[in-house]
Amino acid sequence: MNSEDVKEITRVECDSLGSKEIPKDAYYGIQSKRAQENFPLSGYRVHPELIKAMGKVKYASVVANMKTGKMPNKSGEAIKQACEEMSSGKFFDAIVVEAIQGGAGTSINMNVNEILANRAIEILGHEKGDYDVVSPNTHVNMSQSTNDVVPTSFKLAVITMREDLISKLENLYQTLSKKEQEFDKVIKTGRTHLQDAVPIRLGQEFGAYARFVKRDIERISNSIEALKTVNLGATAVGTGLNADSKYINTAIEELREITGIDLEISDHLVDATQNTDAYVHVSGALKTAALNMSKMANDLRLMSSGPRCGFKEIKLPAVQPGSSIMPGKVNPVIPEVINQICFQVAGNDHTISMASEAGQLELNVMGPVLFRNMFESMEIIANGAHILSEKCIKGIEPNHDRCNELVENSIGIITALNPHIGYETASEIAKEVLETGRSVRDVILEREILTEEEIEDILDPKEMTEPGIAGKKKNDVTA
Amino acid sequence: MNSEDVKEITRVECDSLGSKEIPKDAYYGIQSKRAQENFPLSGYRVHPELIKAMGKVKYASVVANMKTGKMPNKSGEAIKQACEEMSSGKFFDAIVVEAIQGGAGTSINMNVNEILANRAIEILGHEKGDYDVVSPNTHVNMSQSTNDVVPTSFKLAVITMREDLISKLENLYQTLSKKEQEFDKVIKTGRTHLQDAVPIRLGQEFGAYARFVKRDIERISNSIEALKTVNLGATAVGTGLNADSKYINTAIEELREITGIDLEISDHLVDATQNTDAYVHVSGALKTAALNMSKMANDLRLMSSGPRCGFKEIKLPAVQPGSSIMPGKVNPVIPEVINQICFQVAGNDHTISMASEAGQLELNVMGPVLFRNMFESMEIIANGAHILSEKCIKGIEPNHDRCNELVENSIGIITALNPHIGYETASEIAKEVLETGRSVRDVILEREILTEEEIEDILDPKEMTEPGIAGKKKNDVTA
Amino acid sequence: MNSEDVKEITRVECDSLGSKEIPKDAYYGIQSKRAQENFPLSGYRVHPELIKAMGKVKYASVVANMKTGKMPNKSGEAIKQACEEMSSGKFFDAIVVEAIQGGAGTSINMNVNEILANRAIEILGHEKGDYDVVSPNTHVNMSQSTNDVVPTSFKLAVITMREDLISKLENLYQTLSKKEQEFDKVIKTGRTHLQDAVPIRLGQEFGAYARFVKRDIERISNSIEALKTVNLGATAVGTGLNADSKYINTAIEELREITGIDLEISDHLVDATQNTDAYVHVSGALKTAALNMSKMANDLRLMSSGPRCGFKEIKLPAVQPGSSIMPGKVNPVIPEVINQICFQVAGNDHTISMASEAGQLELNVMGPVLFRNMFESMEIIANGAHILSEKCIKGIEPNHDRCNELVENSIGIITALNPHIGYETASEIAKEVLETGRSVRDVILEREILTEEEIEDILDPKEMTEPGIAGKKKNDVTA
Amino acid sequence: MNSEDVKEITRVECDSLGSKEIPKDAYYGIQSKRAQENFPLSGYRVHPELIKAMGKVKYASVVANMKTGKMPNKSGEAIKQACEEMSSGKFFDAIVVEAIQGGAGTSINMNVNEILANRAIEILGHEKGDYDVVSPNTHVNMSQSTNDVVPTSFKLAVITMREDLISKLENLYQTLSKKEQEFDKVIKTGRTHLQDAVPIRLGQEFGAYARFVKRDIERISNSIEALKTVNLGATAVGTGLNADSKYINTAIEELREITGIDLEISDHLVDATQNTDAYVHVSGALKTAALNMSKMANDLRLMSSGPRCGFKEIKLPAVQPGSSIMPGKVNPVIPEVINQICFQVAGNDHTISMASEAGQLELNVMGPVLFRNMFESMEIIANGAHILSEKCIKGIEPNHDRCNELVENSIGIITALNPHIGYETASEIAKEVLETGRSVRDVILEREILTEEEIEDILDPKEMTEPGIAGKKKNDVTA
Repeated sequence: MNSEDVKEITRVECDSLGSKEIPKDAYYGIQSKRAQENFPLSGYRVHPELIKAMGKVKYASVVANMKTGKMPNKSGEAIKQACEEMSSGKFFDAIVVEAIQGGAGTSINMNVNEILANRAIEILGHEKGDYDVVSPNTHVNMSQSTNDVVPTSFKLAVITMREDLISKLENLYQTLSKKEQEFDKVIKTGRTHLQDAVPIRLGQEFGAYARFVKRDIERISNSIEALKTVNLGATAVGTGLNADSKYINTAIEELREITGIDLEISDHLVDATQNTDAYVHVSGALKTAALNMSKMANDLRLMSSGPRCGFKEIKLPAVQPGSSIMPGKVNPVIPEVINQICFQVAGNDHTISMASEAGQLELNVMGPVLFRNMFESMEIIANGAHILSEKCIKGIEPNHDRCNELVENSIGIITALNPHIGYETASEIAKEVLETGRSVRDVILEREILTEEEIEDILDPKEMTEPGIAGKKKNDVTA
Repeated sequence: MNSEDVKEITRVECDSLGSKEIPKDAYYGIQSKRAQENFPLSGYRVHPELIKAMGKVKYASVVANMKTGKMPNKSGEAIKQACEEMSSGKFFDAIVVEAIQGGAGTSINMNVNEILANRAIEILGHEKGDYDVVSPNTHVNMSQSTNDVVPTSFKLAVITMREDLISKLENLYQTLSKKEQEFDKVIKTGRTHLQDAVPIRLGQEFGAYARFVKRDIERISNSIEALKTVNLGATAVGTGLNADSKYINTAIEELREITGIDLEISDHLVDATQNTDAYVHVSGALKTAALNMSKMANDLRLMSSGPRCGFKEIKLPAVQPGSSIMPGKVNPVIPEVINQICFQVAGNDHTISMASEAGQLELNVMGPVLFRNMFESMEIIANGAHILSEKCIKGIEPNHDRCNELVENSIGIITALNPHIGYETASEIAKEVLETGRSVRDVILEREILTEEEIEDILDPKEMTEPGIAGKKKNDVTA
Repeated sequence: MNSEDVKEITRVECDSLGSKEIPKDAYYGIQSKRAQENFPLSGYRVHPELIKAMGKVKYASVVANMKTGKMPNKSGEAIKQACEEMSSGKFFDAIVVEAIQGGAGTSINMNVNEILANRAIEILGHEKGDYDVVSPNTHVNMSQSTNDVVPTSFKLAVITMREDLISKLENLYQTLSKKEQEFDKVIKTGRTHLQDAVPIRLGQEFGAYARFVKRDIERISNSIEALKTVNLGATAVGTGLNADSKYINTAIEELREITGIDLEISDHLVDATQNTDAYVHVSGALKTAALNMSKMANDLRLMSSGPRCGFKEIKLPAVQPGSSIMPGKVNPVIPEVINQICFQVAGNDHTISMASEAGQLELNVMGPVLFRNMFESMEIIANGAHILSEKCIKGIEPNHDRCNELVENSIGIITALNPHIGYETASEIAKEVLETGRSVRDVILEREILTEEEIEDILDPKEMTEPGIAGKKKNDVTA
Repeated sequence: MNSEDVKEITRVECDSLGSKEIPKDAYYGIQSKRAQENFPLSGYRVHPELIKAMGKVKYASVVANMKTGKMPNKSGEAIKQACEEMSSGKFFDAIVVEAIQGGAGTSINMNVNEILANRAIEILGHEKGDYDVVSPNTHVNMSQSTNDVVPTSFKLAVITMREDLISKLENLYQTLSKKEQEFDKVIKTGRTHLQDAVPIRLGQEFGAYARFVKRDIERISNSIEALKTVNLGATAVGTGLNADSKYINTAIEELREITGIDLEISDHLVDATQNTDAYVHVSGALKTAALNMSKMANDLRLMSSGPRCGFKEIKLPAVQPGSSIMPGKVNPVIPEVINQICFQVAGNDHTISMASEAGQLELNVMGPVLFRNMFESMEIIANGAHILSEKCIKGIEPNHDRCNELVENSIGIITALNPHIGYETASEIAKEVLETGRSVRDVILEREILTEEEIEDILDPKEMTEPGIAGKKKNDVTA
């Protein structure tokens, strides 16, 4: 290809560092191109929700700039249209900079600015690159800084994504609650230290899982609530230089209107511009949820261990053949992937924590890596909750015979005798039971410690699983 | 020493595994001794607040057991007195088991039970070790399991320690707020990416720190609030076996009364017995606070860098000579130790997270390591906040001349010209300013872009630092 | 579309759990499809190097199976060809399962098996899906288990990727070493605690960076060396069931030949199948390298802070305009992205550690998340080292005037006087110097402590930076 | 107490910041006192091995200073004696500064300097505090900086502590190897994904554990080896200012002699002074060992789960009664505490990593927190390995009947039939076996797929566990 040809399919753009050839029909411009070349590292794309959110924030900003009279009407209208297109999901392909980038998000902001400028230029009937018509900095970025619009957009994106996350966790909660009811009559052996303990109902296990999911929903939701406080209008360092009060008030009002979210401007914009503790708090809530889900996954894998040599108290639905070599094997693949998600979220939390601690003076420039990890943690918890509910929990079935057998056979039930015969005597009986392989009932009867009737009453497994009820009844026996 | 002598100074105790010689006057017994021998690992002592809290929980329990009629009055009264003594700080030396232990806290519970039993025996006029009089298990541990009393005591200890922590963070907040006022007039250069940006006031920096401390106080306090829900009466697995409703109600009421804390029984004791997500949440809040404090420490170290070759905008109080070799050197040792505390708390959070994830079925047996790390994180943040406030922040002085000089000299102020001359022209001027070493004012005047009056007005540093005000005024200029 | 049409473009496949429609021309089969449906979570693609490595391992395996006579020649040859195609980069699009998956890699193994089977069937002139011709399990997976071929392939992939990683780190090392030479004469102030200390040469700074990169190369390379020990032939649990000695010997020999890598079979296949400590060790080495690079990035950002209000001792090459709002600003975007990579790698290491700890009995089922994080850490360190070298270090220029000025002005040089006037007197002088703003020389001369000549000699900055030399000379002075 | 009395029991010391009263008979001085007041945070004592090591390093230094003629003979001899006393374990009580401190170790260095000075003064017949006789800075710290002697001492301490650590890991390795032999004949079911897989021998399990302990020993030992390169003589920033070559050579030679450790001076002292990657590498090796031990602990807890409702394949020795409420319960307390140690070490590694990344320019001031965490990790792994070996592994007994029963009953053995009947047919049989509850043998016989003799041969459990042997034999069957 000779240089003539190249010229025809490219345009030349300039910035303070020099010039570059840009594909003629590209919406992005020279600064996007530089950023693309500067950060060929992780391969991560900027998250679509962040792009959409930037479209909205830029829209609100241009509306405000028009109201304050700084933005010429014609350009303003064109930029508004471009923003609307971006918010609706267009231009993702023109985002050429990777998600992990230096510059605290300046590259993503400029990539967006250049796209919106070129689209506005196009709408106004000019050639892309004619930045005299609409300038990415002077016009599109008017009254803004990367340091206010990018964090504001990030927060907006997280709040938007919360809906799907919470809804999937809610669904998991519902599924677990249904199982709590369904398994309410299934009595099984409880285990502490993986050692046989006193009886418990399978429904109680699932009820316990349901409750932590409920708490996780609250913790995550509450922590994200704090992100509604944004620093739009803070510009470079939080002093709001180049953004007047009227602009700020109009922009936030507009943003509230088009998003339907009750965002508000921080009462200390310097704080809101430099500190990222609210993100760490969200990540912490996500990690807590992940650790909980991992605990549940571990329990499911334990209780379903088998089919012949394990606990085999429950059966997980088979979702795929388990082994390329062992015929008939079915593995707990859904819980296993949940564990892995948990580890990923815990690792991401670590990354987010280090990134947050690295803020310096007026800015935390580590935003990009922090954003990426937060988005991922949110998504994989949401998706994980979904498949855990739909592909695993819903189809779980108890192995009634096995559960009964283990309860009958367990030595743990001897605990119920403490109030009647004392811990020390009970210990002796436990020892004999264990050594001889006999049942607790047999030994007690033989020793004539209690009558058969008393035993029936005290060792009733169902009773043993009712908090605060079993005890009361047993008191009556000895009363 | 012959065996006769040994006998005189020891007593022999038995349990289900055999017998052991115990020092005759020791309050602890055979199970404590075994635990001491089993876990000679970390050297960590059980936290005094945990011991005190156990004293209170055991007190409430014995009161309840007396009310339900299960506990003989005489033994009960003696145990009560022993519990009171423990709550008031006695018997720490008789806690011989280390803080990091297997068995989910059974050893600390039994160590406490044995102490209380022996003290009660002593009160009743018998010899220590006469467990027929008062048994550590049958009497002191009546209606209880390690799995309910230890977590309940842990929560009580954390809630108790919250007071000191919050009070020290509040004090740090007050100190920062005072500095916010004191430094309100000190204009300095803002820095983003460690590069000169637009002006900011030193008071705004400290105001930003104050605000995150305020948020940390709320986050920590709220997260600890959740610990008021306890599982007392849950016994082994949360089914409350051997603890009847009357016992539970009486015990929690008594505990509320003697602690003055509005504790409540979880409405799902199985959940409350096996899940530790509330701890992870507290640790996450502590970590967030630590990361914030570390960011502040980093800033303080940057702004005070010098005395001649750094930013030298502020001067930290000298609290000790800085170097064993470099005369006259004074180092920012307080911020440095704050950084280190932050790293420790972040590491502890990791430990707590892994420990929480490792819960299995009816119990999380990793409580002991989790407790230790939580106590430490709380204490070092509290102590760190205290010395940061008292030995550093309070004595900070600004270097007025230096701050002024940097603001005057900075290129960042050119940003204020954007609304007047456009980003592109401003960039050109910035370039010239940088290359020639001249001031922004000079170059603008020379180029006759603005009049001296306009410049005075637009580049007024103080104005530039007023969010939403500077901008408005500047609009008037161009209007 | 009616059901007739669907039939024409799909085929039906069956497995032990039922049947599914598969696109007629798809190389993947029913188990891949199930896996795709089971794990729609993270969106991560299986790493191409892992696919290629599996092609090689499967190739070696089929060769061995042909040699032992178990594999029919015709099928064997077809599978071999399919493997070769896969190793050369084909079929990536047919890998439909995501990288993070349950089942310890069974899904990726079966996805590969189905592709190879269908391709072999195609080569043999049959229709895809005719598994009677070539079966994914019986033929392609012959003598294998997921649990040996997937880890072996992973190790092979890491070893293969090591080349690029090491080469980019070597290049970074070379670049730093050149700067060490280039900056050998640039004397600047040293800083400890960010406070002025004794002089140092800029070349020494870069020499220090070069040296840790050198060590990182060795640590990473050595840790990966251990991955050459593989468990091929271990099959399901390391006992090698269904894989005879002849097969194992032939397969590993073949694999060595086609890869050129001196792989060897572990002498304890059970250990090699269940334990992943060698991965953690590699990840630890990667993390160490990342932390080092981050420290370097921090230093570069500090030394280049400015342009007017910071340390401004060096100038980083400008690679993009720094701000959307502040004209003329250039930010250290390359070091900043290096910091973020470091945080990501540290987070990944955490994920890998938790995944490794979660191994149970004969297998660690968390391989998939571990693989993904390892691949990413390797790649982003490699890419990070590349751009750090090419886009930053190479273009760094010292600010000679500033460096000189700071050294002259520094109080730290007073340290050189200790041997001559004692630490205590030196401290007094330092105090006066600091309070008066005068220079160290002036005060010493005024106090008539040393002659001008002696001062010249003792306070020669260059001399002060020569380990073990400056001191000797100064001894002569006092001798 | 009136002021007269105070004077009699205190002395007044001065430094550049003012004066303080010190207990008259205290070996420490004013700088120690200041440090004690500045860092009342964590309560951690400085590790005794660090103090001892400092005694040795200071000893070597004074010898070298005497040889270079800088140190007066009389003072030198007195300091030497003081150093010897410190190395032998004296003066720990006079170390009043806490382990976690700001100032990069200056406070511990000055605490040591003041102790040694005062002890030397005492030896020379003067009053403590008469620093004209021997000065902590000018004499004791001669030719030194905190920045070289503290890291050198730390490395020396770690190398010294390695012996105990490695010896305890070696012992664990031996214990595991003995169990490998002892359990060589115990065939049990293998488990992957916690699901029944093919048979394995209990000895192979322990052999696998033994092998990773062996690798851990090598990794830890190798990583510590790198600490033999020290920066003694680097003084403040690595340029060796105030330390001449003769001093350095003599000091390191002396230090080698008195420690018997082949320490060497780094060939790039600037690098060796500012970078801490070698520590991170050691911590990484420790973490890897901890994760391995945790995996082993998890396995032991799984295999010993029971006594009636779990896997119950092995029995751990009972080391203490397991429950305060459940009679007869014995818990796996030793493995549980090992898990907790692992989590602590992983958290410590995180702390160490963050501390290492925080190094800036010529120094990493975060040494103190890094040292503390490293010492703890080493000690708790050592102690953990010891009790794991002595109190758990040594006493483990297999449950032969249970192991046999599970192998006989397992469906996993069907895998051995793949080479004879194909994966697909084997899958069908597996399905029938699972659904009917019958044994694999029965179904195969009934279906007349193989003769009883063939089955005996193919399904021989022992054969199935021999890598590379079972397969070969089975080939003969079909040949």
